[in-house]
Amino acid sequence: MANGTLTIDLDALVQNWRALDAMTAGETAATVKADGYGLGIGPVARALARAGARSFFVATAEEGAELRQVLGPGPAINIYSGHMPGDADMIRDLSLVPMINSIDQLQRHLEALPQAPFGFQLDSGMNRLGMEPAEWAALREIDLGREPTLIMSHLACSDDPGAAMNAAQRRVFEEMTAGTGAPRSLAATGGILLGPDYHYDLTRPGIGLYGGLPFSEALPVAYLELPVIQVRDVEPGESVGYGMGYVARQPRRIATLAAGYADGVIRLLSGKAQVYFGQRACPLVGRVSMDMIGVDISHLSDTPASLTLLGRQQGVDVLAEQAQTIGYEILTALGRRYNRRYSGG
Amino acid sequence: MANGTLTIDLDALVQNWRALDAMTAGETAATVKADGYGLGIGPVARALARAGARSFFVATAEEGAELRQVLGPGPAINIYSGHMPGDADMIRDLSLVPMINSIDQLQRHLEALPQAPFGFQLDSGMNRLGMEPAEWAALREIDLGREPTLIMSHLACSDDPGAAMNAAQRRVFEEMTAGTGAPRSLAATGGILLGPDYHYDLTRPGIGLYGGLPFSEALPVAYLELPVIQVRDVEPGESVGYGMGYVARQPRRIATLAAGYADGVIRLLSGKAQVYFGQRACPLVGRVSMDMIGVDISHLSDTPASLTLLGRQQGVDVLAEQAQTIGYEILTALGRRYNRRYSGG
Repeated sequence: MANGTLTIDLDALVQNWRALDAMTAGETAATVKADGYGLGIGPVARALARAGARSFFVATAEEGAELRQVLGPGPAINIYSGHMPGDADMIRDLSLVPMINSIDQLQRHLEALPQAPFGFQLDSGMNRLGMEPAEWAALREIDLGREPTLIMSHLACSDDPGAAMNAAQRRVFEEMTAGTGAPRSLAATGGILLGPDYHYDLTRPGIGLYGGLPFSEALPVAYLELPVIQVRDVEPGESVGYGMGYVARQPRRIATLAAGYADGVIRLLSGKAQVYFGQRACPLVGRVSMDMIGVDISHLSDTPASLTLLGRQQGVDVLAEQAQTIGYEILTALGRRYNRRYSGG
Repeated sequence: MANGTLTIDLDALVQNWRALDAMTAGETAATVKADGYGLGIGPVARALARAGARSFFVATAEEGAELRQVLGPGPAINIYSGHMPGDADMIRDLSLVPMINSIDQLQRHLEALPQAPFGFQLDSGMNRLGMEPAEWAALREIDLGREPTLIMSHLACSDDPGAAMNAAQRRVFEEMTAGTGAPRSLAATGGILLGPDYHYDLTRPGIGLYGGLPFSEALPVAYLELPVIQVRDVEPGESVGYGMGYVARQPRRIATLAAGYADGVIRLLSGKAQVYFGQRACPLVGRVSMDMIGVDISHLSDTPASLTLLGRQQGVDVLAEQAQTIGYEILTALGRRYNRRYSGG
């Protein structure tokens, strides 16, 4: 077995959801798009539903269809990308709720499924998804007669509490939604942490559930253990890996571990990241290969059977910084070859 | 349907295999690890087998087991990681051939499966996998009596024809294998291009089959089309995406496309990559989100329904350079949410 073991702590996931839920007065939903941020939409969504989540958000109708199979009837399943061409059957048959982003989408929805519920997604300044203020102003009175399940928007800078953009978007959202009477949602994880002004009726945390920043109090959820395939002694002057990316200056003991960039060990981590044997850090040496990495274990007295890439010693945000990205991408990049184990929940 | 469409051109794959096969006198195998470099081990391996490939290489026994289901009995399936703990049943029941990397692995194999075939992987200088010269020298005479199916090693710098390391590894490989009588293999795609001295009895191309460098003559195999969710006009001073990563200086028309870093559009491509409408390039603007990207389409007269990320206009190596990586990682990062279509083969 030359596969790593990815353990997903569903108890930690549920505790993170409860901690975020406790910060707000309204309903706390859960965003489980991108296969539950890479951790498996089935076990993740079931654990959150058992913990009390009644509304879920995914990116596409296809993800919504998969989630409905997982959850059965009952929980609300909302689709951020709205109602795209080809979605009508899934929306109707599986009771999905599209967050309508544009007049085009509204027309598509009303023509195909005049009775099917929907929400509205408004653009309060991120210029990514949602109706623009002018578009919304023209339609608002007509649309509201159709009783949307939710009116939502998304913050562009919620991970930065000092960003003026947050208050600016909230002001636009207020102006666009005041007096509508419909339930409102503006906050994901970052928005929850910005405080009650941002909470409205429903929050929809994502990254915080899975143990990532900006929820610095989050418990880690993903644990990744990589098996050692082989250990060798390397003499001074010898190189390790592709392109001779590392050259030993002293005698070194190098372990080859069974995970590479095809498993989400991002290639930019070459020569930067560390893995752990208990509390002892072991640096990656040489380039990350497709299926393997080299690790310097010269300072260990034991020959480990496996080493830890994600754990209490280091979480997704440590790796993210080394890979010039964010914890979200470390999670969604996690590969398919790992043995996935779910604990708790 | 807010999913991109990933089309895999199996005819191009087969033509790439044939072109590499025509460069050598020996057998041409195929490396299909990491789910066929992200393109789907099932269709990829079946197409190559129909084209005449009789030997395949994967990273792990689990991949070998999957491949055996795909190919049925007959083709040789070789495992680069060798014989790891827990692999014996798969190796025996599915007729996999481990490339033995160490004395530990040899003992494990001979104890569990004394009659099962195996090859040897030697370390000729990459210090990643395989027996060291000294280890091999001690065992060689005993081992050869067991008639390995193959003796192989791997080049660290084969994408750089000028690297002195290539000849150095070949010299070590010669010394380690001369007179053994066993079939030998040193070259993957890069090694094939280095010339006949590197070909030996069997070559095992990977990246070149899938359209990536260093096989510059390769036909592109992966085509990726991303649907437009929404188009909006952005005024000067307005920002697009997370962290206000892009601010418009003139009036711009921005399309939001349904693919993000969770789909393998690596986040480092933010503000660097382009997508295509026919031959017209449209730059990414703002940060790549988990499920979406923003694209400037101001210069287009039409409103496209979709735009091209991978195609004849740009291949995996263009994106790779922009993402500070190699084409291999662009391929293996391709996400699970795309509709995958296979043409030809």
